[in-house]
Amino acid sequence: QSSVQVTGLADVYAGSMKMAGDASRKSVVNSGGMTTSWFGFKGTEDLGGGLKANFQLTSFIQVDNGTQGRFGGDTFFSRDANVSLSGSFGSVLLGRWMAPNFLPSVVGNPMGDSFAFSPLILHMDVPLFNASGWKATVPSDTGWSNQIAYSTPDIGGFKANLQYQFGEQAGDNGKKNVGANFFYFGGPLTLTGFYERAQISNPGQGTYLGTTKKDWMLAAAYDFKVVKPYLSYGQAKADNNPDKAKTLQVGASAPLAGGSLLASWAKTDLSFSDLDRKTFTLGYDYYLSKRTDVYAMYMNDKITNQSTGNSFGVGIRHRF
Amino acid sequence: QSSVQVTGLADVYAGSMKMAGDASRKSVVNSGGMTTSWFGFKGTEDLGGGLKANFQLTSFIQVDNGTQGRFGGDTFFSRDANVSLSGSFGSVLLGRWMAPNFLPSVVGNPMGDSFAFSPLILHMDVPLFNASGWKATVPSDTGWSNQIAYSTPDIGGFKANLQYQFGEQAGDNGKKNVGANFFYFGGPLTLTGFYERAQISNPGQGTYLGTTKKDWMLAAAYDFKVVKPYLSYGQAKADNNPDKAKTLQVGASAPLAGGSLLASWAKTDLSFSDLDRKTFTLGYDYYLSKRTDVYAMYMNDKITNQSTGNSFGVGIRHRF
Amino acid sequence: QSSVQVTGLADVYAGSMKMAGDASRKSVVNSGGMTTSWFGFKGTEDLGGGLKANFQLTSFIQVDNGTQGRFGGDTFFSRDANVSLSGSFGSVLLGRWMAPNFLPSVVGNPMGDSFAFSPLILHMDVPLFNASGWKATVPSDTGWSNQIAYSTPDIGGFKANLQYQFGEQAGDNGKKNVGANFFYFGGPLTLTGFYERAQISNPGQGTYLGTTKKDWMLAAAYDFKVVKPYLSYGQAKADNNPDKAKTLQVGASAPLAGGSLLASWAKTDLSFSDLDRKTFTLGYDYYLSKRTDVYAMYMNDKITNQSTGNSFGVGIRHRF
Repeated sequence: QSSVQVTGLADVYAGSMKMAGDASRKSVVNSGGMTTSWFGFKGTEDLGGGLKANFQLTSFIQVDNGTQGRFGGDTFFSRDANVSLSGSFGSVLLGRWMAPNFLPSVVGNPMGDSFAFSPLILHMDVPLFNASGWKATVPSDTGWSNQIAYSTPDIGGFKANLQYQFGEQAGDNGKKNVGANFFYFGGPLTLTGFYERAQISNPGQGTYLGTTKKDWMLAAAYDFKVVKPYLSYGQAKADNNPDKAKTLQVGASAPLAGGSLLASWAKTDLSFSDLDRKTFTLGYDYYLSKRTDVYAMYMNDKITNQSTGNSFGVGIRHRF
Repeated sequence: QSSVQVTGLADVYAGSMKMAGDASRKSVVNSGGMTTSWFGFKGTEDLGGGLKANFQLTSFIQVDNGTQGRFGGDTFFSRDANVSLSGSFGSVLLGRWMAPNFLPSVVGNPMGDSFAFSPLILHMDVPLFNASGWKATVPSDTGWSNQIAYSTPDIGGFKANLQYQFGEQAGDNGKKNVGANFFYFGGPLTLTGFYERAQISNPGQGTYLGTTKKDWMLAAAYDFKVVKPYLSYGQAKADNNPDKAKTLQVGASAPLAGGSLLASWAKTDLSFSDLDRKTFTLGYDYYLSKRTDVYAMYMNDKITNQSTGNSFGVGIRHRF
Repeated sequence: QSSVQVTGLADVYAGSMKMAGDASRKSVVNSGGMTTSWFGFKGTEDLGGGLKANFQLTSFIQVDNGTQGRFGGDTFFSRDANVSLSGSFGSVLLGRWMAPNFLPSVVGNPMGDSFAFSPLILHMDVPLFNASGWKATVPSDTGWSNQIAYSTPDIGGFKANLQYQFGEQAGDNGKKNVGANFFYFGGPLTLTGFYERAQISNPGQGTYLGTTKKDWMLAAAYDFKVVKPYLSYGQAKADNNPDKAKTLQVGASAPLAGGSLLASWAKTDLSFSDLDRKTFTLGYDYYLSKRTDVYAMYMNDKITNQSTGNSFGVGIRHRF
């Protein structure tokens, strides 16, 4: 009767970490070296006539210490909590789901969704709680609550999502997040991009950000087989902040000894503060099976006027 | 070896909501338009000789923003957390389970357990955090912790539950919640009712309420096929509050165009404050499959001396 | 595709409890009379060549009131959150897992891991929040976060674990927990022991304890079939506390009327404070099936200069 898939990913690594601006180095066992660990429940029901009902309930976890959520105050199903109807028309989804920025950023760099070692993801999504005071450039998390999202069907490799988050602010019914993204997967060529205009915080129910933030990015990759180069460029700006963040990323993956050599360099220029962040990561990823890979990563991280960081980690990522 | 059922329900709707006493209207994507969303784990083991061991661990969730629990401070398995032994004698259960009030209120109105749109459920169970200061009339939540519950077997369509919640208050071993309910399902006729006497708060471990609260309700429904009318009446009173809440509900469901037309009106009179609440909901529910239905609801909500509320929502409910 | 085991244990009992030092007696429905209730997700993937990838995500729960965790502030997957690679070389694990003290204490007494009724477990692991001010003698929880653990293969019934928890303290990279344990299961004979040196608190990410704590125990059991006696002895000492805790435990289990009679007595002497705790438990455990047992326990608990406690409980434990 019941038709639920229990699924997830456990990724944990041992490493020595020092980010730009850190006062000291730390030996760690940490979660999510390549992908933020998660577990959850998903299902699809065939309603006939090509129509399907789908649900997703997925939760971020920290496999090193057993804590639920990505950070203090994260909500339980902050990764996904939604129901959708899909068919030949595409899909209509209600609930919490990825923000428009997330999947393009993952597809647009060779380290995917590594919140520990991908230079692009680090610049966009991960604040540093050290002397550098680095802030994530994305306006409002990588997931949005209270969404209505429309996804187009796949048309010759092209797909797009239109996303609207109700602000649900008492006495101020107009505040909202809106955005869109697109993907083109045509043989060796990948093209992707997003635009967001955000006024509401995430995760959870959300509050007014006190300003309007805009963010966009375009990215491309091309698989030459011997090497797959990646290129992305984007900008982020809040109405109440003179700084515009401009992020350029170049990267590549290449087959090597049965695994993949991965390299990525990202530079974010904060235009008004006249601050630069430059992060370079070199890594190797080896698949023991379709579901399990081991990896080693080295990262160099620099911010103007801050101590330089060098980090390395060796880990295992297991899908279930 | 293992024999666990992973199961639940995801219900989410888009709507425009204004309850009696609300200062303004809100556009929302909300969870639980028809049934409070939940997920969990259940299992039954056949011990032989007609004896069975059963467990339930189920958790309320908010599918719109991914938050766990019905409200801040709800516990993880506040829907169910219990083990029971069942057989020809009935069933004995230890742990957290429905309060006596819950199932009779669900069976006794045509919108079932809709905490968003059922007039009866709203009056009994959902406080309003606005100018109206509306309080739920049930003494202590729809679920009770630390219970010993005895359930009779089904005897000719009749079934009853006797429930006792240990107060577990330090230095005051006598405080407790006690209650009972019954159900009669005889062909087209449904009869149900409950009585509760509560001194301990819920959910979680519970604290002394500072008073004793009593609550009862009787309800009936009769399925004439072309229409199924519902009627319920109940009273709630706390020893330390001069107000007695008297709640009358009349409703009906009727088949229409492959779905069900639903209507329900509830009136609660607070005897001492001389306040009335009158809520009326008209809705339509259409099943896409046994597991998935879509619905549209309109609700009008009035409390003496408060701004009137009008709400509507369109949603999808998916069982898994 | 997915290969996850959803599994756990729900244990709940009704009882009347009074621990040494308690001012009054409490009637309760409580969770975990014999084993702390839990649920979770586990999986093993065969990678070929004898190599396996394994993960565990397990969570403690309170089946009486539905609360997640063993106590306020416990983390979600505080029981297990790890990935390991295992083969003929043994196993290497990264993440949160049992502390070295836990499994030897369970194997070394006839009431196993009962945090409610096992004298040994109570003395080692369960603080009393009453007049006695009893503190757990183990240095840092029964589980450790941020571990690298190496487990030997089974060599003629002998097995050992070497465990290292990174402290991950900012500006103080040297703080850590280290420990080891061993097990010998040779026919009727069981031998086990552990040593720990702890500087970091648990569960969760952990903070510096402000001192260094050391703890060890040795235990043996021998199954004569008509009776299985148990014996354990251990010591615990913190550098900043003059008290050394010395714990002796003797116990036995014996088949009786299709079930098992269980008895255990533990005495902990706090050398400097000149305080003794003596706890004796007598119980009976009967299996209704391989997965479900019912039990009855009586416990007497004494601490120097404190009121004596007498407790009893009747419960059911169900594995799923």
